[in-house]
Amino acid sequence: VSRHEYACRVRFSDVDVYGHVNNVKYFEYYQEARLAFMSSLGRDRDPGDPAGFSIVVARLDVDYKRPILFRSEPYRIESWVSRVGTSSFDLAAQIMDGDALLSRAHAVLVAFDLAAQAARPLTDDERKRLESALEP
Amino acid sequence: VSRHEYACRVRFSDVDVYGHVNNVKYFEYYQEARLAFMSSLGRDRDPGDPAGFSIVVARLDVDYKRPILFRSEPYRIESWVSRVGTSSFDLAAQIMDGDALLSRAHAVLVAFDLAAQAARPLTDDERKRLESALEP
Amino acid sequence: VSRHEYACRVRFSDVDVYGHVNNVKYFEYYQEARLAFMSSLGRDRDPGDPAGFSIVVARLDVDYKRPILFRSEPYRIESWVSRVGTSSFDLAAQIMDGDALLSRAHAVLVAFDLAAQAARPLTDDERKRLESALEP
Amino acid sequence: VSRHEYACRVRFSDVDVYGHVNNVKYFEYYQEARLAFMSSLGRDRDPGDPAGFSIVVARLDVDYKRPILFRSEPYRIESWVSRVGTSSFDLAAQIMDGDALLSRAHAVLVAFDLAAQAARPLTDDERKRLESALEP
Repeated sequence: VSRHEYACRVRFSDVDVYGHVNNVKYFEYYQEARLAFMSSLGRDRDPGDPAGFSIVVARLDVDYKRPILFRSEPYRIESWVSRVGTSSFDLAAQIMDGDALLSRAHAVLVAFDLAAQAARPLTDDERKRLESALEP
Repeated sequence: VSRHEYACRVRFSDVDVYGHVNNVKYFEYYQEARLAFMSSLGRDRDPGDPAGFSIVVARLDVDYKRPILFRSEPYRIESWVSRVGTSSFDLAAQIMDGDALLSRAHAVLVAFDLAAQAARPLTDDERKRLESALEP
Repeated sequence: VSRHEYACRVRFSDVDVYGHVNNVKYFEYYQEARLAFMSSLGRDRDPGDPAGFSIVVARLDVDYKRPILFRSEPYRIESWVSRVGTSSFDLAAQIMDGDALLSRAHAVLVAFDLAAQAARPLTDDERKRLESALEP
Repeated sequence: VSRHEYACRVRFSDVDVYGHVNNVKYFEYYQEARLAFMSSLGRDRDPGDPAGFSIVVARLDVDYKRPILFRSEPYRIESWVSRVGTSSFDLAAQIMDGDALLSRAHAVLVAFDLAAQAARPLTDDERKRLESALEP
């Protein structure tokens, strides 16, 4: 299983007064990486949905290791599935600069029935797709 | 006619590496002020629409006079209608710190028929509301 | 000990295509609340520092309970200190709409020596201030 | 003279409740394109300055033609110099999707002496660089 890779571009307006990307922007970066990752797993099933899955975010954790600086060259975000449950799953991700780890994230995502506005079990198809990217 | 006043709060993440609110954030501030202004003119007609009017932005101009700094006290945005046309109107706004002018903006807004995806004439009711705030 | 309260205003541009405040924006809200909280604890000591303390964020966790919607009335963010260590401390916070819990957050903050670019012990003064807001 | 081209990537959090990139985000896009353009003109002179020039933005105008939608493929921003004055110059830019014009922008930039906090004349070197990209 190879990890999903996303080329993360920093905007100048992401940088705060300390000259580093502001803490809050990491969540934007991880969101972009997650949508691209989910889309890579589900693209052929639901092209109209940017995420490719009907899911909601239940929890996001981010660890800050080293500052991210503004530059034109993108950073690399690696993403993988770290758990597949009955109606939820976990994603892990990390922002890398070459071999240097800049930040790590963990997300809990819940399969969601938009009509019923309630959690729902993952379908067999979803489970199979998620397990194809599983790295426990 | 008194101008609409909006209390504009700066977020720390709006500030860039130079210690000033980044240029691009002014448009967020003006958008918030505009929505509050439009809502004050149209609230009783369409409570479900955040803007109170079905309009699209055709043009936005912003002049930068003095930097905006991070602080907990809000800045004041004054807004008024500067032109009412057949199917469009203009808004003017300025960001003030006490008597000091920090920035000025001008917006061209077009009445829009969402179903037809085309410009439409302003209704008599809309025109009357806009003219109540007109300061040519 | 009473919790710090921050009036959190939603911007229209915080709302995503689902009509809810986008997940990533919660971190902006928590950051604003944290800076106001830190400032309330440290204001008289260091008025030039927006945070009132020389600290860096090591970790941020956010739980999503219910969506936040755009409205002019602010939401309430309650913040408190949940742990005081040797060179780090934890903050807890929650976004409330009246009695309804919308989101919860937990942050690990590290006292930082900017000159040495390294963690440093909390001073006695900092510890005393943080303990005044401690709710384990 | 060929126009500078910038590959503009849309983030999901740029999209508003109408499913379009929110008006305010265009300014972020134009800012990224402008910094890349300025950097391409001035890179060898001042590698520490993200803009490559010591300038401030005096005015920004944006016209909205067609909505920008979320997608993984970038949009193209073309930028060029439209006027070179004594202490200021103008930039023009447009966001394109293939041959379709989505938005147009115009910026007035002023050469700035950071020490004196005042406008200053453009240097001969700056003028020469700007004129190399001039398309009146």
